[in-house]
Parts: sequence; structure tokens; C-alpha cells
Amino acid sequence: FYYPRHPKRANMSSGFEHEMLSSSKVHGGYLHRVRHYSPCNDCHMTFAIFVPENTLMKTSSKKMPVITYLSGLTCDDTNVSQKGNAFKSCAESNVCFLMPDTSPRGHEKIEGEDASWDFGLAAGFYLDATTDEYAKHYNMYTYVTKELESVCKSVPEINERVDFERQSIMGHSMGGHGALTIALRNPAKYASVSAFAPIANPSAEDCPWGQKAFKGYLKDERDWKMHDATELVRMMEPGTMEKVTSAILIDQGDGDTFYATQLYPERFVEAVEKINVKPGFVKYNVREGYDHSYWFISTFMRDHVDFHETNLTQ
Amino acid sequence: FYYPRHPKRANMSSGFEHEMLSSSKVHGGYLHRVRHYSPCNDCHMTFAIFVPENTLMKTSSKKMPVITYLSGLTCDDTNVSQKGNAFKSCAESNVCFLMPDTSPRGHEKIEGEDASWDFGLAAGFYLDATTDEYAKHYNMYTYVTKELESVCKSVPEINERVDFERQSIMGHSMGGHGALTIALRNPAKYASVSAFAPIANPSAEDCPWGQKAFKGYLKDERDWKMHDATELVRMMEPGTMEKVTSAILIDQGDGDTFYATQLYPERFVEAVEKINVKPGFVKYNVREGYDHSYWFISTFMRDHVDFHETNLTQ
Repeated sequence: FYYPRHPKRANMSSGFEHEMLSSSKVHGGYLHRVRHYSPCNDCHMTFAIFVPENTLMKTSSKKMPVITYLSGLTCDDTNVSQKGNAFKSCAESNVCFLMPDTSPRGHEKIEGEDASWDFGLAAGFYLDATTDEYAKHYNMYTYVTKELESVCKSVPEINERVDFERQSIMGHSMGGHGALTIALRNPAKYASVSAFAPIANPSAEDCPWGQKAFKGYLKDERDWKMHDATELVRMMEPGTMEKVTSAILIDQGDGDTFYATQLYPERFVEAVEKINVKPGFVKYNVREGYDHSYWFISTFMRDHVDFHETNLTQ
Repeated sequence: FYYPRHPKRANMSSGFEHEMLSSSKVHGGYLHRVRHYSPCNDCHMTFAIFVPENTLMKTSSKKMPVITYLSGLTCDDTNVSQKGNAFKSCAESNVCFLMPDTSPRGHEKIEGEDASWDFGLAAGFYLDATTDEYAKHYNMYTYVTKELESVCKSVPEINERVDFERQSIMGHSMGGHGALTIALRNPAKYASVSAFAPIANPSAEDCPWGQKAFKGYLKDERDWKMHDATELVRMMEPGTMEKVTSAILIDQGDGDTFYATQLYPERFVEAVEKINVKPGFVKYNVREGYDHSYWFISTFMRDHVDFHETNLTQ
């Protein structure tokens, strides 16, 4: 199994200038929204983080683990913060909840990047682009896996409370794709990974979202499999999955119109089960009547936060 | 204590034509959005209702009680449904959650009604207007207290599940004003009433929102007190409050910029306590650090649903 180091690295040598856009009290903690310059995307970015009041006074450290949540197409940090029903669960579990944007924004316009809702702006697909048009600004893989952590550590309100040695990752749709591929490519970085209705096999010919994104962002078609959760698992040797992460949880609504036209979560689950994972390592739930929206996510968010809490505190 | 019958009555003689805009599964139940013609407002209206799956199979009737939630300035039904964090609590409590709009919409434009965010569209103040310009369309008091129930009973998905003999009412800001005044003016209709950061004394000179609304909607200044929760209580005889409703709950954030410039909830609480209510009849909580937003509401929504559930099932 091959874990490439991407040639493009963010400049992590110095602190990040940032602006605290707002800090709102909610469920006993604070939701911070932060704007900062992103060297790897060469533009300003905005993210949000919910930091609970730590009620576990018995612990020696006051720092809490963190779940990164990757949003889907068309979203920014505000969709899940307002509609995701996550903060009450996080407050009760003493877990922080980090919400990056879904693409760079505010850079000099790239021709065509705002022409459709499933490519370009708000559709960065959590990869580092290699095509001439997108390589300069579209580097969400590096942003999520490296730069964002450094930015957080330069914000006192966040750095004081968040233990980045204990991380999990999750996401919805395009963000489910992001969470699965990022967890698979960064072994032992994320205690556990979960997804709502992930784009699980984006390089497949029957996944129009993935085909469009990969053609636009990736110069060399041989790179596609490195950004496809199902293909990444198919490259793995039996017995290696437990070294990557400790558990996987996926929820999928059967009333989701994209289920059998874009997502294909079963292909991922089958690939994982083929490489001899221990029973219960991957939990896959098909939920009757639920669609692709935040009504679905908000219903099962508690289960996902509980799942990560269990794996983060083991 | 004087309960006037408003001369304008909706035509309740026939069923209401309606269109089910969407039915989304969430927390095991359904969120329905319904559009219908409103005779009392002489225009089409849209409302939403969350109907849980009834898990109390032991009860003889499958119908559930209902809480009406009145939203604040600038909102429609979608703000609280997406940001209010109510449905999980309602699902666990087997209580329906009814969300009307905050003003009529879609009628022939009235000059000036879209000129500001605190008057006119999305700012109906839950009263029946008497000024020449607004009397035809702005009749939210009649809509909320009478017509909406009739509409709901004409929608099978709602009528089958909702017991309108067991109602409570709550609201936020302008909607807190609406909930308190409507409960006070309709004795024994609502088992309990609660409010987040209500406009509690809108006819006072130091309440600009109330002054502007009442001047615009009410022809005769002598009618103002009938739409002011604090003034309504000041008109009541000692010992009569318990006949109106069984309990009152108010939450107020002390980081709310409108607390001491528009809202004045303590005036209402003091007026209630002056008329010899039993201890604990009015519960008033000042919450440290919380603002006027849905972050505040979502934090304490569970407490409010639990409060109403207790009073609805007694």
C-alpha cells in the first residue's frame, strides 16, 4: 500500500494571521468562526469549530479530542453547524467539532469554476489539484490534513482546548468521500472514520460527480484511484486495515436519490470486508425512508459522535 | 379580565385546499411543509409541522399533543425547523411541533411593507391589524388561534396524528410576544406557554419594535394593551392566572443585545408574580453569555419541550 507524499507542502514555518469572525455561546461551549490566509490554497479561508466547555474535570489535561467534519457539495461550514444537530452531542461527549469549507474561495476567479454546483467553488473534493487551472488554489487535501491543524494551533481559543493527538474524521456525500480517502491515506492519524451517504467510488464510470471532478482537477488519470475510497481499499493487503483506523461507520438513507446513481457505499463496504477485517470493524446501516439531506444527517449525528467518542477515548 | 371576540372571523365553513410541498423523514417522524389559501389573510400561506412516529403504543389513542412555535422577526418556518434543535426532543416526547409563518406573504404588495425588517413582511406581530393598509391581509392572530387548526384538520397526514385538544404554545422574540399574548387571551386553550427572549412589553415607549408595529397595524391606540403581555397581566385579578394556563417558562440570554433595549422580560415576570400565582408557576432563567440567536434557542429547546410535555400529559 502506497502513501505518496504530495510535492506541494504548505509553508508551516510561521504562525497564521487570523481573524475571529464570531464566537457564539451554544450548549455551554463556543462556536468560533475563523478567517485566515491559507498558503496552500493561496487565498483566504473560513472555518468553524465548536469547542465545548470541558465537563470532565477529573482528567488531568483540559484538552479535548476533535472530530473533523467534511461537508458535501454546495456547502460551507454553516450548513452543518446550523442543521447538523452535532453540538449538543459534542458538548455531552467533551469532543470538539471542526468544520472546514468545501473549496477555496475569494481567489482570483478561475474560468468555469462557478459554472456548476458540482465542480469548482464549494466542490473541491478534498484533493490537491494537478491540472494547470486548479493546481494553484485547489489543494483541499493538504488544507484538511496539515494546514488547518497548524492554523488551529495558532488560535489561542482553540489551541488551549483541542488535543490534536486525538482526532477522528467524518463527512457527508463529497465529504464522506473526503473523510474515507483521507483516513485511508493517513494511517493512525484518525482514531476512527465515519460517513453519511459517501461518494464511495468516484472514479467509477457510473459516478458522474466523480468523473467530472477528477477530469477537472487531476491531470493524470493514474492518480484517480488515490482519491477513491473503494479503490484505495482494493489496493490494501489483508490484515492491514486495523493499522489504518480502529473502526468505520457508514449510514445511508434508502430514500436518497443519489444512492444508486452516484454514491455506491456497498462497493466500499464489500472491499473492506474482503481484506479480512475483524467482525464489526465496519458498521454499515441502510436507513429506511431517509433522503440525502440534513434531516437524515441530523437524525443520526448522535450515533456518529458517540461512535467517535468511543474510539477517541479508548 | 376582558377577552374580546375579534369581529373579523375566518370562513371556517369548508375544507381548505392545500398543497403538500414536501414530507421529509427526520428523527423517525415526518416534517411536512404545507401551502394553502388563508381566508383570514386573503393570500396563500406556508407552514410546517413535525409529526413524530408515535412510540407510545400503550396509549389507546394514537394522536399526539402539539406545541405551536411562533418565530421572530425576519423568520419563516424554516429557521426553527433547521436551527431550532426541536425535533429530536419532540420525537422522544411524542409531541408534534407546528411552525406557522411570521406574516402573510404573496398578496398584492402594500406600500412600505417590505421597506424594513422589523415591520410588514416577516413581522406580523401575531395581531389582527386594524389600519386601513394592513387590515385586509395582516390577521396573524386569527390565523394562529383559529384558522391554522382548521387547515391542519383538513390535511389527513396531520389530522390523523394530532390531538388539538392538547395544545401548548411557545415562541422567540416577536414570537415570544405572540405566544404570551395569545395564551393570555385564550384561557385554558394552551396547557402551558413558554418563550425565548420575548418582546414582553411592546406598547412601552422604550420598545421601538413594539411602537413601530403597533402604530402601523393598530388604528386605535387603546387597543395596544390587548397585544402587550405585561399590560394584559396588569389587567388581571389576583388568583385568575392559573385558570388561563398551568405554567409559564421564559429563558433570556444576558448577552442578548436586545435584552435591555427591546425585550424587558422582567416586567412581565414581575407583573405575574404580583397577582399571587403559586410558587414556581412562572419559571424565569437568565442564561449567562447567550445571545438572541438560534444558538441560544437550540441550547435550551430541550428544556422547553420537556416543560410542555409535562404540562400536556398531566
